[in-house]
Order: sequence, then structure tokens, then C-alpha cells
Amino acid sequence: MTEPRTTRQRIFEAAVEEFATHGNAGARVDRIADKAQANKEAIYRYFGTKEELLRRVLDLYLDERGEQLLPQSQDLDAYAAGLFAYHLDNPEFLRLTMWEALEMGGLGPGAPDQGSAAHRRAHYQEKVASVRAQQEDGKIDPDLDPRHLLVAILGLANVWQMMPQMVRLVFGAEPDEETIARQEEFVAECVRRIIAPRGTTAGEPRKASTAG
Amino acid sequence: MTEPRTTRQRIFEAAVEEFATHGNAGARVDRIADKAQANKEAIYRYFGTKEELLRRVLDLYLDERGEQLLPQSQDLDAYAAGLFAYHLDNPEFLRLTMWEALEMGGLGPGAPDQGSAAHRRAHYQEKVASVRAQQEDGKIDPDLDPRHLLVAILGLANVWQMMPQMVRLVFGAEPDEETIARQEEFVAECVRRIIAPRGTTAGEPRKASTAG
Repeated sequence: MTEPRTTRQRIFEAAVEEFATHGNAGARVDRIADKAQANKEAIYRYFGTKEELLRRVLDLYLDERGEQLLPQSQDLDAYAAGLFAYHLDNPEFLRLTMWEALEMGGLGPGAPDQGSAAHRRAHYQEKVASVRAQQEDGKIDPDLDPRHLLVAILGLANVWQMMPQMVRLVFGAEPDEETIARQEEFVAECVRRIIAPRGTTAGEPRKASTAG
Repeated sequence: MTEPRTTRQRIFEAAVEEFATHGNAGARVDRIADKAQANKEAIYRYFGTKEELLRRVLDLYLDERGEQLLPQSQDLDAYAAGLFAYHLDNPEFLRLTMWEALEMGGLGPGAPDQGSAAHRRAHYQEKVASVRAQQEDGKIDPDLDPRHLLVAILGLANVWQMMPQMVRLVFGAEPDEETIARQEEFVAECVRRIIAPRGTTAGEPRKASTAG
């Protein structure tokens, strides 16, 4: 940490790009060194092995981005639409998440570092608590398990970026700007319909919802 | 194609396992040869380069599995729950899909082989047509774009397998059998709520739905 910040930072940014593009098996320390205009020894000195560098990228990058996401609206429809828009502009986030799932089996007990897991876990626990509070206020159907609901929202918001080939197959072509904008609104609408308290008419704007 | 079927088949099955586990960059032809009890020359003779073998795996395997999925119910809630259950028992399918998205950029114009793309495209076009028919019958809200709806259903059904670490973070632990069973029902319930025609009470069993 006493070494010059800039080299370390350049290495880290190059590593984010390299791992997001190629994952763990495909990533090359040589390429990271080239992009960062550093030498490989500096990488090992600052970050240890390639695997340790990757874990560091997942911890810090997903953490940092997670914090940018945290201020999202408590309204779940806006939260879901916000996630969708965010991932559209920041494809590295979900790419890193997918690599993590494929190459590291997620964040189970075997994961080398639980740092970012603890951080992210706290984020989702906060969201679960927020949903429970809104259920007590009659804004969200109390019959829905907040945890299953949160996972459903991640699926709705993230599928577009995680399965781009499926999107193309379903739409028959590369989606244009208008289609992408409609998808963002569709994600929000799906969330409104799912969370509407029973007794509320499905499909009506959420603002009109009342407790059942 | 005149060579013995068994060697070719063994190579193919070993390749499915290898690519599902390691993706393109991480896959090793040596390991495929070992698992298949074949030599590398046989692999190149039957399938060409490693990239051609991968494309062949994606084409045939996702095709074959796709056909097993095709007979799913026309009812979208049962279809979504069926997808969830299928992927739970056959993790290779979504793993290959995720590798395809990450390493090959999906199935865009640059994809080396459009074989399975044509097949899968046809499958989703059928699903879109089925949704349209059900919208005309008043079973599905006609305001929903069938293509966005289909993508939403893929997200709801697949998120559990695609983001296992997020599931663990949200639930605070590895989900048990009961939680997994509840997730399958939750996916179906989300779909029912999304597709319910306006004027229908959200959250009521779909069987009770009538056209708005």
C-alpha cells in the first residue's frame, strides 16, 4: 500500500477489463501487464497469484459497483428498472458475476475470500428488510417471500445482459434502441404486477395500488 | 460419418462435459481425449479444431436438449416451472449457454455456425405464436408484448441456476430442498401474476382468470 498508487490502480483497472472479457482460465497476466504498462513482477507483488488478483477484482469491483447501486429506489419496480439500465451501461458487472458463477462455483464455503460476499450479503439483507417493511405498509403483497421475490427481480432485470443470444433468438434480430427502452419499462411492469397486493387489479399503475 | 459411432459419441459426450465445466478457453483437448479413451487425432478428424468441436456441442447438445424442452406445456406458468426443474436436473444446458454468451458473444452475425441458432430461433418463434394465440383467447393479457414476456420468463426460470452465488447471498445460506421447491412454485406464481388479463385479481389462481 506504500507503493505508488498509480501503478497499482492501472494494474487493477487492466485486470477488471481482462477478467471481465476472458474470465479466470482465459485471462493472461502478460496482457494485464501490457495494458497497465507494468511488469508482471509488480502484479505479483501487489496482488499475489492470478487467482488472488481475480478474487480482489471481484471483491473490490463488485463492491464498488454495489455501492453505486445501493442508493436505488426502495420502490421495487424502479429498483429493477435501475438494475437493468445500470447493467446495460456497465456490462463488466454481470460478466464478472457470470464468470464467478461458472469458474468459482459462486461464493460457497469453498470460496477463497468471503470479503465481498459479506458486503453483498448485507446489501441483499437490507433489500429483504425493505421489502418486509413495505409488506407491512400494504405496498407489497405480504404473501410473497421477500427472498424469492428478490431473486425473481434479479432474473427479470439481468436476463437481457446474461443471455444476449436468447434475446436475439426471441426478437429475431439485434434489438434496437426502442426495444431496449421497452424492455426497461417491461421489467418494471412485471415487478408491479408481481408485487401488487391481492385485491388490486393487475396491470394498473402501482401508484393506484391499495392493500387487499 | 462412416467411422465407428461409439468413439465419435464418446468424444462428443466428453466434450459436452469438458466445455460445460471449463468453457472454450479453459477446455483441454487432452482431457477430452482422456475421458473419451480416444486420441487427439480422432478428435480433430471427427470434429476439426477445438472451436469447431465447441460449436458442434452447442449446436447438437442445445438442440437435443431443446427438443426435450419443446413438449412443455403451452401454459406459461407450467412452462416456466418446467424450465426451472429441467435446468436444476441438467446444469450443463445453462452453463453452455453462459459460456456461449461470455466467450462467443452469443449468436450474432459473427457466430461461426448458425445451425442451432436457426433451430432455437424456430422454437422461440413458436412460443411467441403460442402466446399470441392465448392472448386472442383472453388467457394472457393482450397488452403484453409476447417477445418481452418470453425473455422475462427465461429470466425468472433461469436466474436460480445462472446466479447461484446471488441466491446464496439473498437466502444467507445454501438453499435446501424445501426452498428449491418453493422457488419452482414462486416462478410459476410470478408468471401467473404477470400474464393475468387486466381486470383479473392479481394473485388468484390462474384457472380462475377471465378475460378483462
